[in-house]
Amino acid sequence: MQRTEIATLGEFGLIEHLTKDIQLTQKTSVKGIGDDAAVIDNTNKKTLVTTDILLEGIHFDLTYVPLKHLGYKAAVVNFSDIYAMNGTPQQIVVSLGISKRFCVEDMEALYDGLKLACKIYDVDLVGGDTSSSLTGLTINITCIGYADENQLVYRNGAQNTDLIFVSGDLGAAYMGLQLLEREKNVFDGQADFQPDFAGKEYLLERQLKPEARKDIVKLLAENHIKPTSMIDISDGLSSDMLHICKQSKVGCAIYEERIPIDYQTALMAETFNMNVSTVALNGGEDYELLFTVPLSLHEQVSALEGIHLVGHITAEENGCHLITRDGQEMQLKAQGWNPLT
Amino acid sequence: MQRTEIATLGEFGLIEHLTKDIQLTQKTSVKGIGDDAAVIDNTNKKTLVTTDILLEGIHFDLTYVPLKHLGYKAAVVNFSDIYAMNGTPQQIVVSLGISKRFCVEDMEALYDGLKLACKIYDVDLVGGDTSSSLTGLTINITCIGYADENQLVYRNGAQNTDLIFVSGDLGAAYMGLQLLEREKNVFDGQADFQPDFAGKEYLLERQLKPEARKDIVKLLAENHIKPTSMIDISDGLSSDMLHICKQSKVGCAIYEERIPIDYQTALMAETFNMNVSTVALNGGEDYELLFTVPLSLHEQVSALEGIHLVGHITAEENGCHLITRDGQEMQLKAQGWNPLT
Repeated sequence: MQRTEIATLGEFGLIEHLTKDIQLTQKTSVKGIGDDAAVIDNTNKKTLVTTDILLEGIHFDLTYVPLKHLGYKAAVVNFSDIYAMNGTPQQIVVSLGISKRFCVEDMEALYDGLKLACKIYDVDLVGGDTSSSLTGLTINITCIGYADENQLVYRNGAQNTDLIFVSGDLGAAYMGLQLLEREKNVFDGQADFQPDFAGKEYLLERQLKPEARKDIVKLLAENHIKPTSMIDISDGLSSDMLHICKQSKVGCAIYEERIPIDYQTALMAETFNMNVSTVALNGGEDYELLFTVPLSLHEQVSALEGIHLVGHITAEENGCHLITRDGQEMQLKAQGWNPLT
Repeated sequence: MQRTEIATLGEFGLIEHLTKDIQLTQKTSVKGIGDDAAVIDNTNKKTLVTTDILLEGIHFDLTYVPLKHLGYKAAVVNFSDIYAMNGTPQQIVVSLGISKRFCVEDMEALYDGLKLACKIYDVDLVGGDTSSSLTGLTINITCIGYADENQLVYRNGAQNTDLIFVSGDLGAAYMGLQLLEREKNVFDGQADFQPDFAGKEYLLERQLKPEARKDIVKLLAENHIKPTSMIDISDGLSSDMLHICKQSKVGCAIYEERIPIDYQTALMAETFNMNVSTVALNGGEDYELLFTVPLSLHEQVSALEGIHLVGHITAEENGCHLITRDGQEMQLKAQGWNPLT
């Protein structure tokens, strides 16, 4: 593969090179890359802003994460935060810190992933900042979205007796990470190594190329269902459920047997001798939506495809509990992936 | 000084600790820290977005930059980009990557600087992301601002015969950096070292605690002057003037003798045996405003305090030139500080 040193283009040259084919597709994107700031027209809507920082060695390992996938995921995890407000992502700005180890073609691959995510989710890339770094790759993405005021869903609206639903299934992204780490460790000792990924594609995809649940937000809107609270599961079901409970000043009961788990996740957990419920509760990076609706919507929401009832909201003084398969009440703890320890 | 390890608080604990006294002061800040995204109400205005990444060892050296100053500067350089659109900064979201070298008190100092800048410039801190880092400190700030549509000033509106103005004076921040670097090098060899900064406070302040030119944007508005193009000088007069010329498809003539330079800057350049015009043209980090107005506004704008006429716009085919003190025409080159080489 060709390797063009970034210094041959310089900062402005690199930005121009990477962004020259970027078109603005959203009618709200008034001005994109190339001025001191991007200009966005959100007249009559509320503007949503979320930001995420990804650091090499902490959030990703380039040994097994292709740069295109990394770009895709970096964008999608931000979209997920906007969907979790019941909003629509609209624009991103991208900051990069790039060490000398990376060449222009590397950054092209990263941008290919960013652009693909933007295309699939109808989002414009409208600006950013690019700098050299002394150490590794840093990516910060800020996503701007919008929502009608009466459509917004916060974390603090859950009420006693509300039902708790989760989209998709949980724990697969975490098992995908375990699998990649295992194969990486095996690989360290062998020159002609071929990783063993057959039949485990779903786990890898959930880890390497997650999707944000745009479809669920759309499905809820089509059915005129507005959750009372919502969050995306980035740190694990336990941790994110506790965010809702804390901000809503309520308790909860989550039923272990109801937590949705894919067959591949269960199989891989067994292989690794891990408790699959623990994986689903604390794994993180699922980017599924966790939300609450009034009890009166029980049948209507339960009938929606891809959405699973996992528990109900209780009074604050009852605390936050997991009800195990054998009926025991255990305290729900935030053992999710903590990037600061 | 007390040193509390960040791990004792964890990610959520650290954020809560650092942001617990942060109030929302802007009526457009609907929802701040604590949900998946911040919510902003810019009804009837255009929303502006700008982002800047600061990396340890590239953009700052903690040997001589106090963390509080760093926080202040990190916020202010973003505000400067919003003012350069003739807009008003309104909210920031802050991403941090923090290595184990830093403790809670360090991050408190950084946040003190951020909060001070927000207070002085009437900006709300509405969100962010915090992570550990394997190497040093990374700060990314995204700033949201607003402007009426008819008030916005882009880089691409300069017209042939327009006059070019610059606020304040140039080159001082760069000489401040040279001074700090010199004292650091001297310090390396001495235990009881006292840096020699007497009489050079202005240079240090320009480097360590720059201000964004909110006052100039206000002054122009009060006098009903809307520039045809505007940019903030972060990379140096040459580089930023060339941005305007390229985007406006025009040429320019900048007069060396008209470039505003402070006495301390000139003196320090002499001490360092540097050409002070080169310093002013290429030094960068001045965060002054560079803008163009129609020739018809010559007298009106020239009469404003703190604004200096430095040249005029020419036809694109004439190119971009510096007219030296002895009347020579030299091509203007972007030799500004390039973070990628």
